Amino acid sequence: MNLENNISKEVYTKVLPLTGKAPLLTVIGAGPGDLELITVKAIKALGMADVVLYDALVNPELLEYSPKAEHIFVGKRKGCYAYQQEQINELIVNRARTHGHVVRLKGGDPFVFGRGAEEMKYAADHGIPTKMVPGISSCIAVPSAQNIPVTKRNSAESFWVITGTTKEHKLSQDVYLAAKSSATVVILMGMSKLPEIVNLFKNEEKWDTPVAIIQNGTREDEKIGIGTIDTILEVVQKEELANPAIIIIGEVVNHRASVRKVVENNIHELSSEL
Amino acid sequence: MNLENNISKEVYTKVLPLTGKAPLLTVIGAGPGDLELITVKAIKALGMADVVLYDALVNPELLEYSPKAEHIFVGKRKGCYAYQQEQINELIVNRARTHGHVVRLKGGDPFVFGRGAEEMKYAADHGIPTKMVPGISSCIAVPSAQNIPVTKRNSAESFWVITGTTKEHKLSQDVYLAAKSSATVVILMGMSKLPEIVNLFKNEEKWDTPVAIIQNGTREDEKIGIGTIDTILEVVQKEELANPAIIIIGEVVNHRASVRKVVENNIHELSSEL
Repeated sequence: MNLENNISKEVYTKVLPLTGKAPLLTVIGAGPGDLELITVKAIKALGMADVVLYDALVNPELLEYSPKAEHIFVGKRKGCYAYQQEQINELIVNRARTHGHVVRLKGGDPFVFGRGAEEMKYAADHGIPTKMVPGISSCIAVPSAQNIPVTKRNSAESFWVITGTTKEHKLSQDVYLAAKSSATVVILMGMSKLPEIVNLFKNEEKWDTPVAIIQNGTREDEKIGIGTIDTILEVVQKEELANPAIIIIGEVVNHRASVRKVVENNIHELSSEL
Repeated sequence: MNLENNISKEVYTKVLPLTGKAPLLTVIGAGPGDLELITVKAIKALGMADVVLYDALVNPELLEYSPKAEHIFVGKRKGCYAYQQEQINELIVNRARTHGHVVRLKGGDPFVFGRGAEEMKYAADHGIPTKMVPGISSCIAVPSAQNIPVTKRNSAESFWVITGTTKEHKLSQDVYLAAKSSATVVILMGMSKLPEIVNLFKNEEKWDTPVAIIQNGTREDEKIGIGTIDTILEVVQKEELANPAIIIIGEVVNHRASVRKVVENNIHELSSEL
């Protein structure tokens, strides 16, 4: 049966490929920056890609997993977006129709403030089948790579991950409630709102609550600042910490010091005996 | 210089190995169940392991990445723990001293309700250097593999991950506050408390808030139930959903239906034209 003769052109172009290849969108999480924090599933999907659209926060060395694919940078460079979100959506649909398998490679996990869901919905609305490969999310992995667990018995029974900046460029209302909770609070994209965030915790008299700020987490140029609600603004100034950074507020931050101090003490103990 | 003659036995056994191999603990996240959702870094660490201690929620096929290592099951089987936490801690320290590199392989991410932090602290307290390899956490990846994003513009600016059962076997107080928030609420180990959880959301008049329950997420025997605060208890009974399961409460649950429906509609549209 010749499909082309039996169905209308409109339906054909909507769901069938213009090449021999079946259109497909796979949204992939590339992890937080460290090249090795990508999954086997993501590497396999990259190997089967015809086109890869990638962001600024993705390590470009990952593109070597798809040497035959077309690579299109769609992120932000020097403060300017290469493509607007609407253009990315259209690019996905058009490339899937003309080239087949489009991989959308995003930093961290694409479903954590990544707009991966929006892109999948747009593609699905245009008849493109979609798949999703989760990635290591920065919100958990960046603190853990610095020995800060988001949960710990007797310290935190929960963690709350919040975007610092909403669509309207305001501080999310959730931060007000988070300051009242006993959750570990993890704020992404919140550096410009840090003074405001700190004030919310001060209003709850949480002056001594530990705070960590990790810039470029898991990358070679990683920087970290540790303080409390009372001192963190000074730490940020002194250490010149800026975006992209993750803010972690809660007792769990102290875990890092406890593990490090013990190891350092033992080394000291040993060398003083030698 | 003969170290053994120059330092006290106590310090020696505390920080130096009894074999030629340097003691080391690497705590690794194995991901949510799907074999391919493990990272390159984790596979490399497994390849360098002398001993692997693994849990019930870890896919045992992953042990093939460390064919030469000793494999010790330390999880729960038929409701009984093979080892108590204190025994696991001691096993880590003793095996690191006698065998060298101990890998502690945990389901999901070891720092999300995994007690990975406790084990690292115990090892560090006993002079064993520690490393950490983050894993794909079930709390984000299990919903996303089912096309449920934990955040989505206009639906949720944050997500709050809570353990259903605290150390004292009570519902975490954080769930009370979470029911008042606009966060996507993700509850792990909460199935036995589901009626209580549902009531908290009913008290906030959130009858229509969508709820998804995913059992054995990303595994071949995965099961899912979708409902609202008002209907989810019936769904659980009908679908016979039980632990290990993840509860997701929030508007983002509807994303799954919107992506699926569109794809199904297109298939339907196509076949009716054929």
